[in-house]
Formats: sequence, structure tokens, C-alpha cells
Amino acid sequence: MALSDVKALAFDVFGTVVDYRGTIAREGEQLNRAKGLQVDWAQFADAWRTRYRPSMDRVMQGALPWTNLDALHRLSLNELLRAFQINDRFTEEEKDRLNRVWHRLQPWPDAIPGLTHLRTRFVLATLSNGNVALLVNMAKYSALPWDCILSAELVQAYKPDPHTYQMAINLLGLRSHEVMMVAAHQEDLRAAQAQGMQAAFVLRPLEHGLHNAPDLTPDPTFEVVATDFMDLAQQLGTLGGHQTIGERW
Amino acid sequence: MALSDVKALAFDVFGTVVDYRGTIAREGEQLNRAKGLQVDWAQFADAWRTRYRPSMDRVMQGALPWTNLDALHRLSLNELLRAFQINDRFTEEEKDRLNRVWHRLQPWPDAIPGLTHLRTRFVLATLSNGNVALLVNMAKYSALPWDCILSAELVQAYKPDPHTYQMAINLLGLRSHEVMMVAAHQEDLRAAQAQGMQAAFVLRPLEHGLHNAPDLTPDPTFEVVATDFMDLAQQLGTLGGHQTIGERW
Repeated sequence: MALSDVKALAFDVFGTVVDYRGTIAREGEQLNRAKGLQVDWAQFADAWRTRYRPSMDRVMQGALPWTNLDALHRLSLNELLRAFQINDRFTEEEKDRLNRVWHRLQPWPDAIPGLTHLRTRFVLATLSNGNVALLVNMAKYSALPWDCILSAELVQAYKPDPHTYQMAINLLGLRSHEVMMVAAHQEDLRAAQAQGMQAAFVLRPLEHGLHNAPDLTPDPTFEVVATDFMDLAQQLGTLGGHQTIGERW
Repeated sequence: MALSDVKALAFDVFGTVVDYRGTIAREGEQLNRAKGLQVDWAQFADAWRTRYRPSMDRVMQGALPWTNLDALHRLSLNELLRAFQINDRFTEEEKDRLNRVWHRLQPWPDAIPGLTHLRTRFVLATLSNGNVALLVNMAKYSALPWDCILSAELVQAYKPDPHTYQMAINLLGLRSHEVMMVAAHQEDLRAAQAQGMQAAFVLRPLEHGLHNAPDLTPDPTFEVVATDFMDLAQQLGTLGGHQTIGERW
């Protein structure tokens, strides 16, 4: 198993490719102005994200039937609008639009330049707990150059369930070590490695904002540790004008 | 149900977007020269394609377990190499490469210009019996600008099985009449309409070569009949410099 075996990169999306906290904070500021609210939307985003793992756990433990992430986000949003005491300031249509802020998340500044380089040599797939429509709309909105949208929804099992990683390997028609998981989260990478995939850890120190640093400690077993997507492109040999000709993937 | 409801286009691929017969004939000519063969590769392509529907039918009728299209193509190829009496002229590796000609199919000349216009307003998805890896590799090889790769493989049911069309509607997160099937084959369009999708019939008079015209008769119920993808882009209002701003899809 070597770096040169890698043919496809499978990307975690929320936090790794896109900045959900910053995007929600910026859209929320516009809502504050439009509606005369005084919500701390960064805090709102944190609270929304805090409900993410428990909501998926309810599905995976069978307390909820399969529910895609748009619907889980909406359940959490309904709770949060009440908790922040602003539920009566939104129509149903406005709540739908707010829930779809996850379809409009904006990439970290290095993401598109890095992906554009990486795409010359590798198949670039999402491998996200976001549902397909969410990921497709986000890619269109934010011009993310994916070759393939893969989602937990395709196997109705949220990461880090092994089926999700196996689905990616199988659908890409590759051997497990030919697929490299790219994520800012150690748990995601360890779960991918357990299925035989390679792992690239990308540091996203600002995922939770300026004052709440995530754990940036890489496992010694991670094949690559990168400061951002341009660094990843460099380490994987796709910078420097070497376009791969023909059918490498 | 109106044309203006359409948010996503789901494309049949083989014959509609790409010219399998021409591509196989051209690659075959190179094999003839390299190996001193005298095979009629257009005829070979026709024979390969003739085995396509029966091989999928064997899966759908339960005579074979789920088998993706790469594997069905390979079963057919093994038969054909013997029928054309050239089986001993190919190593296993060369047979693998020949089988993957379906990953290298080239688009009709209007396909990429048309898709590029259509993509400014619509989500563009494949909805093909080709497996995911085949479609991803083809898109990369031939620069097809898909937003999303959807395949019969995702539900292990080949078109025209209703599950395949329902999968596309559900994963795109749309209502059925918001998705338009685009195909050169009436049966595919009728099956999509039976699931509530809209239908665009694109004429591909050369799919079977110069001397074997396909049935080009549209059903009166097809919402659009187009001479090629540029005509489709025109009829769906994506020519003339109107870029859609923001989140239409």
C-alpha cells in the first residue's frame, strides 16, 4: 500500500471542504438585518451542529427510521428556533429556506484551487453524511468540481458505519487502498482505514471558530497530514504543471 | 405540469450522449493495425450492443444475481471474441482494456456544448444502466460536465424498471414532474413518464450507423422533441446568454 496506489479521493464535506459555521453566521447576519433580530448566529450554528451526531445516532440505533440529513437538520432547526425564541418570526417557507443553508455552504478559500489541481490526477468523490440533493445543490451553488457525489444516503447508513466506506470503494470499482479518505476529523479517517482505505488528515483549525480549536493531533498511521487542500495537492504530486494524460483513474 | 417546472435533467447515456458504435469502431481499427487483424469493429460493436438488453434481462428475471454492466459487458465480450475467432489474440489484460472501451466512449459533437448551456439552469444527472465507475470514468475521459452520477447500480435494477426512475426523483429531492428524462429511446422515455417525469426525445439517427436508421418517431406525449443537445438547450431557454443567477435548482 503506497501513496502511488491512490486513484480516487473521497472527501468528507462539512468542515473539511466547506465552512458551515462561517456560512450560517453570514446568512444569519442578513436575517438579523432583514427581520430586526439580534441572534448570535455563530452560536446558532454551533448549536445546530451539536445536534448533528445525536440525530444520526438516533437513526443508526433504530429510534428513528431512515431519515436523510435535510430532514434531520429540519428537526433540529425546529427545536432551535424555539430555544432561541424566534420560532414565530419565520414562516414555514422561510424555515425551509433557512434549513437549506446547508445546500449553500461556502468552501474554505483553498478548497476549489486545491480540488482543481487534484482533479487532474484523481477521481474526486464526496463521501458525506449529507444527502445527495444537498451535496449536488451545494456543488452547483459553490462550484465544487466533484466527479461523483457519494453519500451515506445511498446505503442508508451514516459514517462512521463501515457500509458507507464499503459503498464508496465498490461503486468506484476500486480496491480499498486505491481510495483515500480526506477529512478534518480523525474518527472519520480511522473508520475509513478500518475498511482498508488510505487516510489524509487536513487541518481545519477554524472549523469551530477562532476561540474553540478542534483536536488537530494526527494519528501516526495517517498516510498524509496536510495544512490545506493546496498542500494536499502538493503532497500528492498534482502541483507543478504535470497534467496526467490519458486514463489514469 | 409545465416545462417551467423542470429543475433537473436525467440523461440516458449510451447512444443519447455518447456514440458507442463509432468509438468502438475507431478503437478497433487501432487494434487491427497493432495486431494485424481484419475485424469489422462496427459489426463487433453492433453484436456487443445486441447482447446488452438480453444480458440485463437475465439479471432482472433472476437468472443471474445482480451483475453490474462492466461485468455483463465482459461476459458478452468473452462470447464475441470466440465468435469472431480472435480470442487467442488477446491477453487477459488486453481483454480488460478492451472491455473498458465503454469507459472511454466519446460524445456526439453537440453533447458537450449543449450540456454546458443546460448546466447554467438545470441539475444535470446521468440516469444510465452503466455502473457508477463506468460513468465516472467516462465523464472524466470525455469531459462530460455532470452534476451527479446516477446509475441503475444504485438500486440494482436496470431501466426500464420503475425503481430506477424513482431513485433519481428521490435522490434529487424533487417532485417527479420537476425531473425531465432525456433519451434517444422511446421506451426509456415512456417508462420515465409512467413515474411522472417529463420526457425529452433527442434524435440520434446515426446511433446504429449510416445504414440502419433507428425508429425516430416521437410519441405525441413527449414534452420536447429535439434534433440534438443544442436544440434541447434552445428549447429549454438556456441559449442566448441568460445565465441563471442564484439558487434555481
